[in-house]
Amino acid sequence: MGRALWTDLYELNMAASYLRREMEGPATFSLFVRDLPPGRGFLVAAGLEACLGFLEDFRFDDEDLEYLSGPLGFDRVAVDAFRDLRFTGDVWAVPEGRIVFAQEPLLEVTAPIAQGQLMETFLLNRITLETTLASKAARCRIAARGKDLVDFSFRRTHGVEAAMAVARTTAIVGFVATSNVEAARRYGLRAAGTMAHSYIEAFDSEEEAFRAFAQDHPGRKTFLVDTYDTVGGIRRVARVIQELNPTGPLGIRLDSGDLAELARRGRDILDRAGLDSVEIFASGGLDEDDIDRLVEAGAPIDAFGVGTRLGVSADAPYLDTVYKLVAYGERAVAKLSPGKVSAPGAKQVFRGPGLDDVLCVRDEPVPQGRTPLLQPVMREGRRTGPPGTLEEARARFDADLSDLPPDAARRRDPVPPLVPMSERLSALGKATTERLRG
Amino acid sequence: MGRALWTDLYELNMAASYLRREMEGPATFSLFVRDLPPGRGFLVAAGLEACLGFLEDFRFDDEDLEYLSGPLGFDRVAVDAFRDLRFTGDVWAVPEGRIVFAQEPLLEVTAPIAQGQLMETFLLNRITLETTLASKAARCRIAARGKDLVDFSFRRTHGVEAAMAVARTTAIVGFVATSNVEAARRYGLRAAGTMAHSYIEAFDSEEEAFRAFAQDHPGRKTFLVDTYDTVGGIRRVARVIQELNPTGPLGIRLDSGDLAELARRGRDILDRAGLDSVEIFASGGLDEDDIDRLVEAGAPIDAFGVGTRLGVSADAPYLDTVYKLVAYGERAVAKLSPGKVSAPGAKQVFRGPGLDDVLCVRDEPVPQGRTPLLQPVMREGRRTGPPGTLEEARARFDADLSDLPPDAARRRDPVPPLVPMSERLSALGKATTERLRG
Repeated sequence: MGRALWTDLYELNMAASYLRREMEGPATFSLFVRDLPPGRGFLVAAGLEACLGFLEDFRFDDEDLEYLSGPLGFDRVAVDAFRDLRFTGDVWAVPEGRIVFAQEPLLEVTAPIAQGQLMETFLLNRITLETTLASKAARCRIAARGKDLVDFSFRRTHGVEAAMAVARTTAIVGFVATSNVEAARRYGLRAAGTMAHSYIEAFDSEEEAFRAFAQDHPGRKTFLVDTYDTVGGIRRVARVIQELNPTGPLGIRLDSGDLAELARRGRDILDRAGLDSVEIFASGGLDEDDIDRLVEAGAPIDAFGVGTRLGVSADAPYLDTVYKLVAYGERAVAKLSPGKVSAPGAKQVFRGPGLDDVLCVRDEPVPQGRTPLLQPVMREGRRTGPPGTLEEARARFDADLSDLPPDAARRRDPVPPLVPMSERLSALGKATTERLRG
Repeated sequence: MGRALWTDLYELNMAASYLRREMEGPATFSLFVRDLPPGRGFLVAAGLEACLGFLEDFRFDDEDLEYLSGPLGFDRVAVDAFRDLRFTGDVWAVPEGRIVFAQEPLLEVTAPIAQGQLMETFLLNRITLETTLASKAARCRIAARGKDLVDFSFRRTHGVEAAMAVARTTAIVGFVATSNVEAARRYGLRAAGTMAHSYIEAFDSEEEAFRAFAQDHPGRKTFLVDTYDTVGGIRRVARVIQELNPTGPLGIRLDSGDLAELARRGRDILDRAGLDSVEIFASGGLDEDDIDRLVEAGAPIDAFGVGTRLGVSADAPYLDTVYKLVAYGERAVAKLSPGKVSAPGAKQVFRGPGLDDVLCVRDEPVPQGRTPLLQPVMREGRRTGPPGTLEEARARFDADLSDLPPDAARRRDPVPPLVPMSERLSALGKATTERLRG
């Protein structure tokens, strides 16, 4: 079964009507976030690679067509038109890893209107998912101020696919590893893992479990110390390390209690035992607020494992993304629904230093000192270049992060920069609204 | 590539150590929710079918083993042990659709400890996902008080897999349809769809768009009326319906503005035009609070489309699920980490009328007037019966919902019933803690 039915029924209804009426004029759809969620000062663009893969491969297979003609009741005219349909349009998009703001198009599709409409559900879903996750993870990166971060979210993401997206997007914003083995394989990331409380409990004593782990575990060994009594656990680990002198980088993991205080006591115990190279790893329901507090307090923690609240972007689990028809044939279009008026026409964002952006009509000349944010990534249904890599996306994120205004980067009550419209875009919006209001 | 690497690295580390040491005693792991999220008075068990499918098919394929021996550095002993590993354990679980509370096991696995450990990440992920979604959807069902509900969430769920899970779990709790075409095909649900604002905008006038839709659209026709001016849009739809007299059930959809007021005006306009069979459908960022308010206000709305906030369970996007080792070999086990002390041993929940539950040791005799909630669903790696159907799950949900105490069912500040432990379970917990504290 193909992926063409990964869509809302109304997309098929509309597309069938367009195809039947031979409405084939080029349409431009613009995908953007209407408003940032409370608590977000910026977003990190992500999800484009998966979207391009979807567009390249789009087709209805025989099983899809049978379902459309059978249970869904589409007639032969519609089914025949769907059979031949491929995506032959152009796509402009913001490259993955770049920092963006509300109202800025993340992606624009120009294609015969039926094609553009059929892509809506998947494109919205994917861009929303990855941009939501990348933006949450970026806040952890800022809070960690250079400490290592590891993705620990797999067990409570919204499915396996979402877990892969967390691993991918955390890598874009600079996490050093993931606990997710499949994601590590798929994206070439470092897999990281320690032990669970169950491992300790399966042995007759904690010390016995530490000995077994020191002997059996390949590579980096991080001992979980809080199963019964954290300080006692740290002392026992120190003893086992001194006795067995295991290979590979070594660490302890704190997963409950007062992490700052336990990290200090742990550092002290380890240092006194001559184990100053043993690192301290913290986990246990952490989010960017906890990380910030621990770093601020000077807790001697070397790395943080970040799980559930990152993995579902708990404080802002979705974005107010839309995929709007902004031009059809020769006309710029818009809707006038209360609170949902959108600017018409294909757009571009011109960016100056300090992420100083202006929202413009696509074909305006580039103002001096600015560069265009949206790039042509697909022409006539084919990518304009090879797939982007995570390294490239990460480099783009690092560059934009270093240029992000402090007010937007702030963890609490951030203030995103204003993104003004160019004169031409304002004039187009005004003219379109007046035409539609008649 | 198989699904065996859909796991956290530490599961593999621990399993390899157990296998190397020939630690093959049966272990019991218990999957439950420690605490309900704020605002939840109950949960709806879901996700079991996918878990059983995963367990039945579990195996490492050659590509998986190559990744383990290569990049991950597992040695030949570990890789050979993984090659032969299948899931041969027993599973007890709460059937899908049943209402459950905190601390009640949703699923318990008894298997050689390495096997049980390797299943942790997937089982947690899946049960958390579907139980989170089903529980959110159940709140919409209660708020709607018999009005129809349709899943509209696909565009902003956390991926396609999550969208399928929303469609599936909303069907369990009584939604009548989904906009998600692939889910409708996969689960045999009714697909529902109307039109988007873009369809209206693609025509020279709204009236022209309504005419085209009336002519082209198969089956149920729901006209979106708020693109430019809602009341005008309703009048235009009424005119088009009167003129063209289209086939199939008819409706209008309100997607913005004051839905209660617009529904009243819409009902009035339609009724005066002799169109009292035309239904009114409402959507636009709704959740159970909005639905409750609209139903409470007596708005003449026949059905609600519920999207994003349902699809990500926005107010409670995750559950505090855990998968705890509760017995190994002859010993009941537990951890003593601050705030995370868990009850040891395999368990059962005995339920009386009014969802009056007692948490017990698995093999306690069934108290009079109560029935066991957990069922044996897998023995020695094989299902004890055919896969459950959504109809069965829905019937279980309907039965439990009719028996749910009002305090737990309440939308705001619900109070879940207390679930006491039996004397035997309390005594076992006390004895285990004392043994571990030494």
